Amino acid sequence: MTRVAMLAGGVGAARFLDGLVRVVEPSDVTAIVNVGDDMEWSGLHISPDLDTVTYTLADLVNPETGWGLRGESRRTLDRLSELGGPDWFMIGDLDLATHLYRTHRLSQGDPLSAITRDFTARLGLECMITPVTDDRLRTVVGTDAGELAFQDYFVRRRASDPVHSLRFDGAESARPAPLVEEALNAADVIVIAPSNPFLSIDPLLSVPGVRELVIANRSKVAAVSPIIGGEAVKGPAADILQSLGHDVSALGVARLYDDLAEVFVLDDADAALASSIESETDMRVIVMPTLMTDVEAKMALASGTLEAARNVP
Amino acid sequence: MTRVAMLAGGVGAARFLDGLVRVVEPSDVTAIVNVGDDMEWSGLHISPDLDTVTYTLADLVNPETGWGLRGESRRTLDRLSELGGPDWFMIGDLDLATHLYRTHRLSQGDPLSAITRDFTARLGLECMITPVTDDRLRTVVGTDAGELAFQDYFVRRRASDPVHSLRFDGAESARPAPLVEEALNAADVIVIAPSNPFLSIDPLLSVPGVRELVIANRSKVAAVSPIIGGEAVKGPAADILQSLGHDVSALGVARLYDDLAEVFVLDDADAALASSIESETDMRVIVMPTLMTDVEAKMALASGTLEAARNVP
Repeated sequence: MTRVAMLAGGVGAARFLDGLVRVVEPSDVTAIVNVGDDMEWSGLHISPDLDTVTYTLADLVNPETGWGLRGESRRTLDRLSELGGPDWFMIGDLDLATHLYRTHRLSQGDPLSAITRDFTARLGLECMITPVTDDRLRTVVGTDAGELAFQDYFVRRRASDPVHSLRFDGAESARPAPLVEEALNAADVIVIAPSNPFLSIDPLLSVPGVRELVIANRSKVAAVSPIIGGEAVKGPAADILQSLGHDVSALGVARLYDDLAEVFVLDDADAALASSIESETDMRVIVMPTLMTDVEAKMALASGTLEAARNVP
Repeated sequence: MTRVAMLAGGVGAARFLDGLVRVVEPSDVTAIVNVGDDMEWSGLHISPDLDTVTYTLADLVNPETGWGLRGESRRTLDRLSELGGPDWFMIGDLDLATHLYRTHRLSQGDPLSAITRDFTARLGLECMITPVTDDRLRTVVGTDAGELAFQDYFVRRRASDPVHSLRFDGAESARPAPLVEEALNAADVIVIAPSNPFLSIDPLLSVPGVRELVIANRSKVAAVSPIIGGEAVKGPAADILQSLGHDVSALGVARLYDDLAEVFVLDDADAALASSIESETDMRVIVMPTLMTDVEAKMALASGTLEAARNVP
């Protein structure tokens, strides 16, 4: 039995989890998911990272995009567009049911973590998926155009603004959701997913107590680099490393994770960086293929990461 | 030029309006619509009567039901049902766009009347459609099962509970929407639509100032009976007349409208009641076909009603 807790963003984390639940008991896995991307949209509460992780593990995700649902349609969104309503955030007809369900439950006073538990159980998932907090947490992106709400920056403006600063609105008073502390303490391995360090992992760590718990458990923590060959597999991680003055490479990411993780998983393509990382940080570096191109690759990455994290030298 | 203001509920009012805008200039018509049926549903603001009136005049309404949209689908609702979400209120995929649009605008601070004006303009309507108030007004139905929110009574429980009392939550502090008072004062004819007197007309009149203005303009007011041959054309009007101790007939309705209207429009089938109504009330009774079975019937009813109201004896 290997209990695994993961700090998870969206697509990259979801793919890693999809491999992970095939190499350990799904019920031993807890995904602690970012909610800094959450938004209110026309009265609905949308939790993009929770949905991406859930849809992926339920084998419902659109494989083309890595988010949203397979076989999705946009009847409502097209009509909303005709009406002059907000149409810049893709919400499919089936996806909409998720948001309506969640918002209905929230309006009845249920916490997001309980709603997520019921939702994932109904989809047949055995692993635990929890928001990092039931409290309001919103990533705010500082740009030349001023401070932008996360989805405004990410979707509406296509992550095209150089990012000068990030803050996590609500973080100071947010409390970890019920399962979070127990999952981190009980885990045999804590994985920092190959997610955006600034937009996915930092908001998780901003919830008081979470960073401290990860640091306290550092000997069990493995971080997977989301940067391969100086580029992000997906999303604006490389641009943000640059605009915030970091090295645009796995080395730049490794420096950010030094106090959090014992093991750093580096892609084969970056093998040349291994010695720099090991000399500059206190992390052990493991080099392996990290591109999750198919199920086998996902499983191999999950197995290799767990093995490295458990192999205390 | 005949300026017409109408106190309007849902289906019956919408059908009358559909005839009315064909016999007078649509831009001379103002429909003042009930919002006591409005509800919050999974975070969305739903205004069933505004939508029924708008969809009907825009020739988008489902002719089978008299509400909802033609060619509607229920992809989102079916999925929501699978998820265990609230599925008792029929919300089609296209209809959903209306609610999303409205809720989005409301969340930006726009008043319901302005949103309705933009929405109806976008659908090409020339007549004015306004909620009776921009403030919160909710019909609460007293039954053996306790007080029920309107749609709980009407849709979820299929209007099957005997109604003992009605109240209009928010009425005391509600203010008429911007166009309402002007429309009532400027009208050559005010029509009380063949809507449910208790569930559609009373909530309109409960907004402070509206009843007083209708009474002040009584000489211009024509009310169309929603009861034909002792039965409601649609909905629970007959049951409510009975449970509240009124005569289950057009006479029962006429007694309710005596202080409001100069003219009472009675269906041919109820011609025998005309003399009783004229002797018991101060209204002039006009007998004509009131079943709005097709466009010609709607137009004839609208013309006949206007003519009667303008023929001050």
